[in-house]
Amino acid sequence: MPSELAARVLSGETRAAARACRAVDDRLPGHRELMKELYPQSRDAWVIGVTGTPGAGKSTLTDQLITRLRARGGRVGVVAVDPTSPFSGGAILGDRIRMQRHFEDPEVFIRSVATRGALGGLSRSTSDISRILDAWGAQVVIVETVGVGQDELEVTRMAHTTLVVMAPGLGDDVQAIKAGILECADVFAVNKADRDGADATMRDLEVMLALSGDLYSVAASKGRGHSAVTVNAHAEAGARGAGWTPAIVKTAATRGQGVDELEGKLREHRAWLDTDAGQARRAERRHLEMLTFLRDALAEEAVAELGAEIEAAAARVARLETDPYTASEELIAKFRARA
Amino acid sequence: MPSELAARVLSGETRAAARACRAVDDRLPGHRELMKELYPQSRDAWVIGVTGTPGAGKSTLTDQLITRLRARGGRVGVVAVDPTSPFSGGAILGDRIRMQRHFEDPEVFIRSVATRGALGGLSRSTSDISRILDAWGAQVVIVETVGVGQDELEVTRMAHTTLVVMAPGLGDDVQAIKAGILECADVFAVNKADRDGADATMRDLEVMLALSGDLYSVAASKGRGHSAVTVNAHAEAGARGAGWTPAIVKTAATRGQGVDELEGKLREHRAWLDTDAGQARRAERRHLEMLTFLRDALAEEAVAELGAEIEAAAARVARLETDPYTASEELIAKFRARA
Repeated sequence: MPSELAARVLSGETRAAARACRAVDDRLPGHRELMKELYPQSRDAWVIGVTGTPGAGKSTLTDQLITRLRARGGRVGVVAVDPTSPFSGGAILGDRIRMQRHFEDPEVFIRSVATRGALGGLSRSTSDISRILDAWGAQVVIVETVGVGQDELEVTRMAHTTLVVMAPGLGDDVQAIKAGILECADVFAVNKADRDGADATMRDLEVMLALSGDLYSVAASKGRGHSAVTVNAHAEAGARGAGWTPAIVKTAATRGQGVDELEGKLREHRAWLDTDAGQARRAERRHLEMLTFLRDALAEEAVAELGAEIEAAAARVARLETDPYTASEELIAKFRARA
Repeated sequence: MPSELAARVLSGETRAAARACRAVDDRLPGHRELMKELYPQSRDAWVIGVTGTPGAGKSTLTDQLITRLRARGGRVGVVAVDPTSPFSGGAILGDRIRMQRHFEDPEVFIRSVATRGALGGLSRSTSDISRILDAWGAQVVIVETVGVGQDELEVTRMAHTTLVVMAPGLGDDVQAIKAGILECADVFAVNKADRDGADATMRDLEVMLALSGDLYSVAASKGRGHSAVTVNAHAEAGARGAGWTPAIVKTAATRGQGVDELEGKLREHRAWLDTDAGQARRAERRHLEMLTFLRDALAEEAVAELGAEIEAAAARVARLETDPYTASEELIAKFRARA
């Protein structure tokens, strides 16, 4: 027997979904109960994670994808994952001006997520908001991150399909970041393909994928100013249910170039998820999600119960009377003994 | 009575420090005991966190800072914080080629940190490696991140002094990232100051600092191609022990411009840390560190003890038989009851 709010979200009422999101954001009393009601009602929306280096054009590409997804009918949800900010979520959302036209589409729900508190909780908030948008009726939920760090990787790793957006000329730190995101990318978009260096970025990516240990072959189909390259050693095997090999698509999002091919590759990945190998990968991600939930819930419960004792432990560490390892062990023992 | 390894680290032996770092990285048996020995022996090295958008020139600037710090004598430690990578830490370190000349300086210890496992632990590894370098005799430890995400913010927030490096022309996502890092920045470097748009980036920063709610005034001292701007509403009050107002310094690291001023501002911040307000802020950061340690230790212990039960819970969530909230609550109850 769902609560009134849960029932209204499930009937697709946008105001109710917005209220549910606020309840989760502000950790209002009852938000856990609400999520417990909504989870089993899941319609299993397709969750696409979009990450990549700042300035690569993630928002423009997301905007283009929304347009294409909307053209097929069906609701679309967008979760914009922002770093902790002293400003309101609105101020940052305002920054994503390119998505603005979709704000006026009643079938598109765009919601910003910012972490609260010292211990993050970004993954759980994102997961909750995605689930609310799913319950509201979104067929696709796009989770877009701003940064490219550990937590952002964690967030996109929990998506069904992860799109990594890169662009030429963003500096050599990009090399290092690539290494981190390689392992969670299902599809790469090399955006701003009209710029110098796009081909070099494509080659870099191919080399890094090769270094990552997979045999692969490159099948390029070059078109007008953009091309789709599929790194598909196991392309044939993939169809039979073996591993997925990341696709690379060149795009020029501001001109809408390559976006159809990109959508095609994303849909191929979605189809792959229904193979045995795809199911195994979904199970792996669900396991990760469970771990993250557990970690956050444990931390929340321990902090709520231990409160002042944690502060006292920090002070003792500062006075060099103890070390954080010993202090943690003592705090955990207290926490467990008190159950 | 320290163990042999701890004693050798404390006597400044570089090979011993390297072995200690490996023990922490690989979570070898005994690494906790080692850290427990080293913590109380802390010499309180000055920890400078360096973060900022990819491509802003963090490594070049860090390189320049190392040179200046070394010119004053005293050992310098560098912790390079990399995102999870399928490659070895070495491959990524190789990317930081600009720091290479310091690899040959026996008084500089450069160590890469990469996270292991699904649940991160980046903060704790970074904290441990910093402490080992401190014990080895580093007077200053520079912690440099590659990404700009939640975890990276957490890592730099634990430093004594946080330097945020920006550069003109890195795209508009930068706006959003700025909002996230504003609250943890003590000093900003606007690097690549010889490029178009450097002044616009300076202005953007000033506006964002103003928006963050502090009254401030700008005192600019313009020099040859670089200038130091101090946003110092409370500059006078600051000397008396009130809040710190972030400084902004223009640099062109590849030419070494502005680096002296940057070092000066960093040292001003260090001096401020000894005021009452500075002490309060250090206490706040130690509290955050304690929280992070506790969260990671709790997660590690729970995962080790619950193992297969977490996997089973994830499977039940997948079959919609339960939801992650209820499943977490049950797992936590089991974990606590078993103590």
